[in-house]
Amino acid sequence: MDLSTVLGIGAAFGLMLMAIIQGGPLSIFINIPSIMIVVGGTFGNTLVHYPFGDVFEALKVAKKTFLYKETPINDLIGQLMQFANKARKEGILALQGAMTSVEDDFLKKAMQMAVDGQEPETLRGMLNTEIEYIQIRHGKGADIFTSIAAYAPAMGMVGTLIGLVQMLQKLSDPSSIGPAMAVALLTTFYGAVIANIVCAPMAGKLKNRSASEVLTKTLIIEGMQSILSGENPRIMEQKLHAFIAPKLRQSTFKK
Amino acid sequence: MDLSTVLGIGAAFGLMLMAIIQGGPLSIFINIPSIMIVVGGTFGNTLVHYPFGDVFEALKVAKKTFLYKETPINDLIGQLMQFANKARKEGILALQGAMTSVEDDFLKKAMQMAVDGQEPETLRGMLNTEIEYIQIRHGKGADIFTSIAAYAPAMGMVGTLIGLVQMLQKLSDPSSIGPAMAVALLTTFYGAVIANIVCAPMAGKLKNRSASEVLTKTLIIEGMQSILSGENPRIMEQKLHAFIAPKLRQSTFKK
Amino acid sequence: MDLSTVLGIGAAFGLMLMAIIQGGPLSIFINIPSIMIVVGGTFGNTLVHYPFGDVFEALKVAKKTFLYKETPINDLIGQLMQFANKARKEGILALQGAMTSVEDDFLKKAMQMAVDGQEPETLRGMLNTEIEYIQIRHGKGADIFTSIAAYAPAMGMVGTLIGLVQMLQKLSDPSSIGPAMAVALLTTFYGAVIANIVCAPMAGKLKNRSASEVLTKTLIIEGMQSILSGENPRIMEQKLHAFIAPKLRQSTFKK
Amino acid sequence: MDLSTVLGIGAAFGLMLMAIIQGGPLSIFINIPSIMIVVGGTFGNTLVHYPFGDVFEALKVAKKTFLYKETPINDLIGQLMQFANKARKEGILALQGAMTSVEDDFLKKAMQMAVDGQEPETLRGMLNTEIEYIQIRHGKGADIFTSIAAYAPAMGMVGTLIGLVQMLQKLSDPSSIGPAMAVALLTTFYGAVIANIVCAPMAGKLKNRSASEVLTKTLIIEGMQSILSGENPRIMEQKLHAFIAPKLRQSTFKK
Amino acid sequence: MDLSTVLGIGAAFGLMLMAIIQGGPLSIFINIPSIMIVVGGTFGNTLVHYPFGDVFEALKVAKKTFLYKETPINDLIGQLMQFANKARKEGILALQGAMTSVEDDFLKKAMQMAVDGQEPETLRGMLNTEIEYIQIRHGKGADIFTSIAAYAPAMGMVGTLIGLVQMLQKLSDPSSIGPAMAVALLTTFYGAVIANIVCAPMAGKLKNRSASEVLTKTLIIEGMQSILSGENPRIMEQKLHAFIAPKLRQSTFKK
Repeated sequence: MDLSTVLGIGAAFGLMLMAIIQGGPLSIFINIPSIMIVVGGTFGNTLVHYPFGDVFEALKVAKKTFLYKETPINDLIGQLMQFANKARKEGILALQGAMTSVEDDFLKKAMQMAVDGQEPETLRGMLNTEIEYIQIRHGKGADIFTSIAAYAPAMGMVGTLIGLVQMLQKLSDPSSIGPAMAVALLTTFYGAVIANIVCAPMAGKLKNRSASEVLTKTLIIEGMQSILSGENPRIMEQKLHAFIAPKLRQSTFKK
Repeated sequence: MDLSTVLGIGAAFGLMLMAIIQGGPLSIFINIPSIMIVVGGTFGNTLVHYPFGDVFEALKVAKKTFLYKETPINDLIGQLMQFANKARKEGILALQGAMTSVEDDFLKKAMQMAVDGQEPETLRGMLNTEIEYIQIRHGKGADIFTSIAAYAPAMGMVGTLIGLVQMLQKLSDPSSIGPAMAVALLTTFYGAVIANIVCAPMAGKLKNRSASEVLTKTLIIEGMQSILSGENPRIMEQKLHAFIAPKLRQSTFKK
Repeated sequence: MDLSTVLGIGAAFGLMLMAIIQGGPLSIFINIPSIMIVVGGTFGNTLVHYPFGDVFEALKVAKKTFLYKETPINDLIGQLMQFANKARKEGILALQGAMTSVEDDFLKKAMQMAVDGQEPETLRGMLNTEIEYIQIRHGKGADIFTSIAAYAPAMGMVGTLIGLVQMLQKLSDPSSIGPAMAVALLTTFYGAVIANIVCAPMAGKLKNRSASEVLTKTLIIEGMQSILSGENPRIMEQKLHAFIAPKLRQSTFKK
Repeated sequence: MDLSTVLGIGAAFGLMLMAIIQGGPLSIFINIPSIMIVVGGTFGNTLVHYPFGDVFEALKVAKKTFLYKETPINDLIGQLMQFANKARKEGILALQGAMTSVEDDFLKKAMQMAVDGQEPETLRGMLNTEIEYIQIRHGKGADIFTSIAAYAPAMGMVGTLIGLVQMLQKLSDPSSIGPAMAVALLTTFYGAVIANIVCAPMAGKLKNRSASEVLTKTLIIEGMQSILSGENPRIMEQKLHAFIAPKLRQSTFKK
Repeated sequence: MDLSTVLGIGAAFGLMLMAIIQGGPLSIFINIPSIMIVVGGTFGNTLVHYPFGDVFEALKVAKKTFLYKETPINDLIGQLMQFANKARKEGILALQGAMTSVEDDFLKKAMQMAVDGQEPETLRGMLNTEIEYIQIRHGKGADIFTSIAAYAPAMGMVGTLIGLVQMLQKLSDPSSIGPAMAVALLTTFYGAVIANIVCAPMAGKLKNRSASEVLTKTLIIEGMQSILSGENPRIMEQKLHAFIAPKLRQSTFKK
């Protein structure tokens, strides 16, 4: 489970609720028509903007960010070095056997292509296309949350304008101004909460996830190409280490 | 018919109307001069910005988003694999016969060029130019809606400023302040609705449509080039699958 | 004359004036010091930002958008096809005679270079440099209008702040608050009008003009290079058609 | 002296002062603590953002924009054509003598490299690196002014918030509200003036200067490379003319 | 210690405190629930957006900007020229001995690769990958501060909306309006301070640091490649000087 996402959202919402309750009853912040115009309207905008399928896909991906655990990049480099040594000693076909222990589908595909005898350049080209379109698909998830983070405050403003116009039309009763304006502001409040506490950070998280997945896949391509071209394992390790921070580099040789 | 667009716009407008009616008569939100300054002014700005032709083209394209249904990308890959097998068995000229069953103009053109014996590189170059300029033309449609989404709130602000200045000049009668200000805010309200409930999501939809059309056409180019260069059908299928999500990949071989 | 620009600006201003007059005398929207601070200040900012020459050039170009009429792209393709046929039959030097009927300077220059016997690659390189720097120069025109559209509201805000500070300092006389605030808001109003009804759409128009001019010139380069390399006219026409929308493509062959 | 910068800033400030004085005493717009929080705070932000050296460099460069006079681009082309003719007649080494009359350091360096017998490609590579890093350094100057134009209004808002909070805490005395709010608004006013009348146009000017300097240097590289490769002077002139507007092109041949 | 960062932050905070104290007690600007909702909420958003590790890394890097001192770029060029002369006279292996005096890890790695006999192109490729991923990692630090600078004002607005709604609901007691509103504005104030006085300039500083580090590393790559290919030291120095401002160029030859 991704603790940082859960803690972060919990902290932000918890502190907000605390601030609300400390100042008065929570009930004055709950107004069904206001929730409907902001949540429903934003959902409507999103459905016009994106096809059904993409929106539900994005929600599914968002759920995954609460459960997902990244595999350390060092383990991947170690695994690739192991395959390199195996391929050097027993030939490239020996990777066939090693594939059963591999969980990552992308690495499996790359190994299958290597075992199938494809050229290093073909392998790189095809896998690069795959990375490029993975980025486009992942980008759409982040995009949808970014769009919601833009539509929610806009619908909040629409709701507040409606409330203001109605309030101003019956300004005769001054005692009703305060509560009417408070209700009018609620939609702006909902919009700000949806945008800033939920959707904007979520979009950021999805972008970060995508970036680290692309880094993983880029390392796999570099590694498999080194293996296919029978490069010196030390050079290969140096190449793979160039992608990560110096303090994360644990050589399999100097140990 | 594109249900998601229709439902989305319906939901957003419906919820907004509900919120309005619940708080008072709908009539206080209708003001002809305010509508004229926002809608007419925005239309004026748009005509200065874009030529007549482009604006009407954009409206036509927008209408299409309500009616359009995408063809599944899997069917296209299946069709391309079929052509590849046909071309391998009966020669490239056999595609001439298969062209009659093809509806997509771009695929038809690509096949005609292949049958005419053009080089794979010429075919790719010419079709890539075509995709590039399709993107530019489609981009203009989305651009126009994005511009309207920027002009409408600006005209709304101009209208509200006019109303405020007029109201402030005759501040002597306090009872008129409320309704006058309500009317002044209406243009801001119209601008926000036009921008956020209609134009911004519409611009987004057009961008998404363009992206999925470009993906379709890119697959056609890749596929036709594989066919022309007589590539192994399994490799060709792997190449085409690299463009789509793993769970959408249905091999014609493993079945 | 470019009707769309004239109609657009006319409609936006007309509707605005109508809304003003309907609500009270036009005179309350005219305030000389406010006009001076917004118009003069914006002009000052613009002169700091851009050299004299560029600003006057931009105004001249803007005037041209009221008078300019685009030549249809189909006629250009037809003309290029005609030259291709002439060159195929009578040799490239025959274009010398055809040049007298050509009005476009860029096409004339391209033909002169072809007649002078320059290599296709030199021709393409030199004309591409020319297009690149035409884009930079045109971009500056649009840039200047975009900058004015940013400076005018800023000067409007400065003016309104001046008015507000002065009003607040003498708050003792409540009856003067309304009119003083109305006057303070006028600079914001002027800034919004200059930015949104004049300059932003104008900048957009200049960008669109530049894009369509670049498309024309790109077609000329492609066409002349096809002619120079003696390409098959049908292929050449297909290449040129790839740049334009399918429904605009009128073949000179199928007729 | 760059008249346009001086006139522009003079006009903007003059009109603003006029508007102020016309409405009341200038003194109500001067408040030492407000000036300190906006000017000092902005300077503080800028020192955190950029190293000392860069900030002072930017101020020096800004001063130069008041004094600088551009050399006409036509003269440069004429000079390059002269060198081309000299090199054709007397050999490339003859440029050694011509170097004494050259003032521009970049042109001098290019000529020295040509005289030293460096390859056209080495010359282009090294000078392009130089242009690239000149752009980065110049860009930093514009960047600093752009940052100040962002920090000043932010500090203005911070100052206004401080004033508002203090005013609201002692709301009991209604007669003090007006003047207190006027003072609170002053920091917003200072921020807007610093950003919009000084820094944003200045950043624009620096960008324009950098662009025209890069154009000059690009022409020098193109010209020297033509000279080194002994290109036909007419072709060389055509190449150089491609960088500038048609109406500025004055051939040294047709005269 | 980086004096400019310390002085800058000190000046901005000092002037702000001065302005506060001059207008009333500091205590009215301190409100624990308001601090909790802005600081805690922003921290929560940031933890959703970025993994734990990246956030703590960013804080560590930020601390470094208070302590870090850049090495002058001239010394680096001098050092590289020294190595070039040594390598010319005593062979590339002589760099092994010189490595002990080198502190920079990147330069050490480049020298080790040269001594190990790697090809100039391999060296450039691997070190360029390293620079590219250093930029990505550094970029993340600046990114995190930029995100905080966006979340803090958003949380400030959420806090102010909560305060406003609660205040408007109990508008019956007019004397409480002022102080209640003052408290409501505090969260906006905190958000503005965190964003504009702390995080935005800090993000800028990190970007500048990253840029100057990349410049240093680019010079190392250029220099080592010149050394490996046995280039003339004068040419090598000219190449390295192309990266820096003319007035910083101190030749080791003309001295």
